[in-house]
Amino acid sequence: MVLFGLKKYPVDLTAVVSMTDSGGANRIIRDEFGLLPNSDLRQCFVALAEDNNDSEQSLRDLFAYRFHKGRGFNGMTFGNLFMVALTDIFGSQIEAIKKTSQILKIKGKVLPVTLDNSDLAAIYENGKKIVGEHFIDEPKHDGRIKIEKVYLQPKARAYPEAVKAILGADLVVIGPGDLYTSLITNLLVEGIPGALKKTQAKIIYVLNLMTRYGQSYNFTAKDHVQTLEKYLGKNCLDFVLVNSSPIPKAALSEYKKEKEAPVIDNLRNNNFKVIKGDFLSRKAIKKVPGDILRRSLVRHDSDKLAKAILKICRQ
Amino acid sequence: MVLFGLKKYPVDLTAVVSMTDSGGANRIIRDEFGLLPNSDLRQCFVALAEDNNDSEQSLRDLFAYRFHKGRGFNGMTFGNLFMVALTDIFGSQIEAIKKTSQILKIKGKVLPVTLDNSDLAAIYENGKKIVGEHFIDEPKHDGRIKIEKVYLQPKARAYPEAVKAILGADLVVIGPGDLYTSLITNLLVEGIPGALKKTQAKIIYVLNLMTRYGQSYNFTAKDHVQTLEKYLGKNCLDFVLVNSSPIPKAALSEYKKEKEAPVIDNLRNNNFKVIKGDFLSRKAIKKVPGDILRRSLVRHDSDKLAKAILKICRQ
Repeated sequence: MVLFGLKKYPVDLTAVVSMTDSGGANRIIRDEFGLLPNSDLRQCFVALAEDNNDSEQSLRDLFAYRFHKGRGFNGMTFGNLFMVALTDIFGSQIEAIKKTSQILKIKGKVLPVTLDNSDLAAIYENGKKIVGEHFIDEPKHDGRIKIEKVYLQPKARAYPEAVKAILGADLVVIGPGDLYTSLITNLLVEGIPGALKKTQAKIIYVLNLMTRYGQSYNFTAKDHVQTLEKYLGKNCLDFVLVNSSPIPKAALSEYKKEKEAPVIDNLRNNNFKVIKGDFLSRKAIKKVPGDILRRSLVRHDSDKLAKAILKICRQ
Repeated sequence: MVLFGLKKYPVDLTAVVSMTDSGGANRIIRDEFGLLPNSDLRQCFVALAEDNNDSEQSLRDLFAYRFHKGRGFNGMTFGNLFMVALTDIFGSQIEAIKKTSQILKIKGKVLPVTLDNSDLAAIYENGKKIVGEHFIDEPKHDGRIKIEKVYLQPKARAYPEAVKAILGADLVVIGPGDLYTSLITNLLVEGIPGALKKTQAKIIYVLNLMTRYGQSYNFTAKDHVQTLEKYLGKNCLDFVLVNSSPIPKAALSEYKKEKEAPVIDNLRNNNFKVIKGDFLSRKAIKKVPGDILRRSLVRHDSDKLAKAILKICRQ
């Protein structure tokens, strides 16, 4: 949403992308092809793809397409297969990322946070340990149990280009995204927290709209920030963006079934400035076959986010 | 090879493509997706795809790529999945063909010979009947047994645009390609032989270099022409192009293992003119994983073919 919104403005964008996804297609990609997961990359590519004409739009739609038929590739996205094939043709995943950027004529850059094959692992407050982002993301255990600590197994080092991008940035945007499996997983990569401390860039955290069963159950805005800061370091955040517009009631009951609710805003200015505003999308959301319901109902508005972010940038 | 060769010249190209393939990926596409086969389309798209820059070349290579890992899509080509996904996105296979043409920026047009779902069937001289192109192409029976007759099951009507292209052409090139499964299968589509009789275009038949076990075992050049004319009609062919350059010995022994040999040229001018020349490729042939050996060793040279065809065009 952030990339998609900022794409329309004359800014130089770089997406640094988490590389620990282990669910669905990524499991196949990791286990059967021996490659790094590429679902998160794919979403950034879709957001940044050029769409000036019919042919570019078709290619972007194709890249985002998910098969929902066909033994063996049901559930796979076309974009994942696209990158798997390019990796084989050009001999490395980083080369495939570059070629994908070229073919989709993306505005900006997409960089993996690491090229090391690693899994996200979690220790819960009851002592239980789980390895694999997928099992944290869609828990088979009681998802109300708090995560005590996350780490990568084995350790992963930052992709040097990603560190360079952070050090050279004017602004770093963290989130929105699942707190542990999309955001903090990047902060566990050796070299990333260091770069975020060292950079002159302003750092903005865009808070999620809804809590997430399994990783931020019942979390308030403050819980989110404190958890993030545990891995990012104190005094690192400059701004926190919080939505203050109420979530539609119809959506709330759907989320309630999943034990998820709006993030309660209990934040005040601190070592960071809190920016409250209406960041909620009111567009009718198109359901994509295979999508989990909760992903589809409540979303940030990309334009509203972009405007708020750029306003900070100009301060 | 013909399309690839002619692409470099300022000519208006239309490929009319057979639609009865039932082997490999096409079986999955037909059975699991309920779509028409698209492997033959794919090859034409690859031949006609624009390749002026890095990004276009990568997209073409990607389209031609064959997966050789991954349970469930091992053996599938990326181009097939590309068209399957587009068909689902745009609601019809013909729309997917148009979108593919746009995305790959092909030079010319690719048209299916029919949009009817049909199988090639053969009756052999021993009375045996086989339905499905795949079983004719890679016979489980003794492939030396001659085909008595082929037909489509059920009947298929020509795609009107294909008929229009034939009627409006200056030149029609038939072949090279497997006699029954790539060439004659098109002549079984209602409306195609009629269009070929009616058109003012010169009709050229490019004879194969090698015989093919299962459909043209031991066939001479004359056997090829006579068999083609049985379905095309007499007095339809204006030119037959025959290679007169000897096939390299190293390749011959490989083909011999498959019971295949060079087509012996016993043709003389008839109601058609025979054009003999060196049409053989001497380029080192890159082996693609999953390719059948015999496909890879002896090929026409696309430039030599194009030059000979254009020479006829100018007569």
